[in-house]
Formats: sequence, C-alpha cells, structure tokens
Amino acid sequence: MVKVVVLYGQPTDPEAFEDYYANTHRPLVEKMPNVARTEASRIVGTPDGGDPPYHRVFEFWFDSQEDLQAAMGSPEGQETAADVPNFATGGATILIAQVD
Amino acid sequence: MVKVVVLYGQPTDPEAFEDYYANTHRPLVEKMPNVARTEASRIVGTPDGGDPPYHRVFEFWFDSQEDLQAAMGSPEGQETAADVPNFATGGATILIAQVD
Repeated sequence: MVKVVVLYGQPTDPEAFEDYYANTHRPLVEKMPNVARTEASRIVGTPDGGDPPYHRVFEFWFDSQEDLQAAMGSPEGQETAADVPNFATGGATILIAQVD
Repeated sequence: MVKVVVLYGQPTDPEAFEDYYANTHRPLVEKMPNVARTEASRIVGTPDGGDPPYHRVFEFWFDSQEDLQAAMGSPEGQETAADVPNFATGGATILIAQVD
C-alpha cells in the first residue's frame, strides 16, 4: 500500500484550525476517490517533553501508486489540496510513502 | 487509540540506514510490550516534486496513553529509544498523537 502523510505545523489559532478542519476540510477529503482508509490524529506531545513541531497528522492510504495519483489528480483531490492554505496557518508538509 | 510517530530525517548513507533499520532496530521495536500495531514506510516523494524532508515514517499504536507510557518506560522501550542515534544520521522527530 501507499499513503499520503500530511503534517500540519502549529496554527496561529488552534481553535479556528480545529473548527475548519473538522467541518470544512475533512468532508472534502472524504469525497476523494480510491481512498482505502484514513486516520486523523492530534499531536499531544513529544517523549522528551519538548514542544512538538506539528499540530496534526493526517494520513490516507491507497492500494497502489496509480490509485493515489488518480485521486490527487481528480477534481475532488484538487479541491482538497487547494483548501489546505485556507486553514493551515502553520503550513503543511505533505509526504508520499510506500508502506513496507 | 494513541500512537507514536517517528519521522526519520534524510540519512547520510541511506543504504546503511536501511540495513541497520531492518536488521537491528526493527527487531528491538517488535520486543516492546503493549504495542497494538506497527506500520513502517519509506518516503518516496512529495506531491509537488520537491525533496522530501524525511526518509522514513514509523508509527506504533497503543490502546491507551497508559499503555504507551508503560511501553516507552519499559527496558525494551528504553533500549529501542537508545538505539535510534546509532543509525538515524538525519535525526529523528518523535511525536505522540491522539487518534480522533
């Protein structure tokens, strides 16, 4: 399987981020084709007690690289990607990963 | 559920990293108590074609924060954490996350 990992940097207004993320962005993600599974999580700390560099991690899995490319290139994928700057005031690092 | 997310920076010698990771580090992780699930993946790119800032993502899930703390504090957890600097020449960013 392959997955997309989105690491959201610390937003300027965490409450506004959470509200937009839950009510506007997540519904867009759920409309994307080919998505086998999703997992959203909120960073709550680091093992050494330092400030975490990210606020949230979102991952979505696909059965193949072809499915992933088709999803990212679809109108729903484009709309989802275009929405990220609307709320990700701490930036977003997006990675494509091959699961072992 | 809660999870630990380990983001490995780009190592100086990717081949040496992969070898140590597969043959020495992963077996240590597998000995940790309370781990509900693990997923290892290799970063293969970014959507915009830029250089990814990380080489690998490793995640392990626990049923509760208590299970996670007990695992990280166990002798096996301490041994696993102490092993990271032995191969992670690009550094390792470790996050604790609460799954939605």
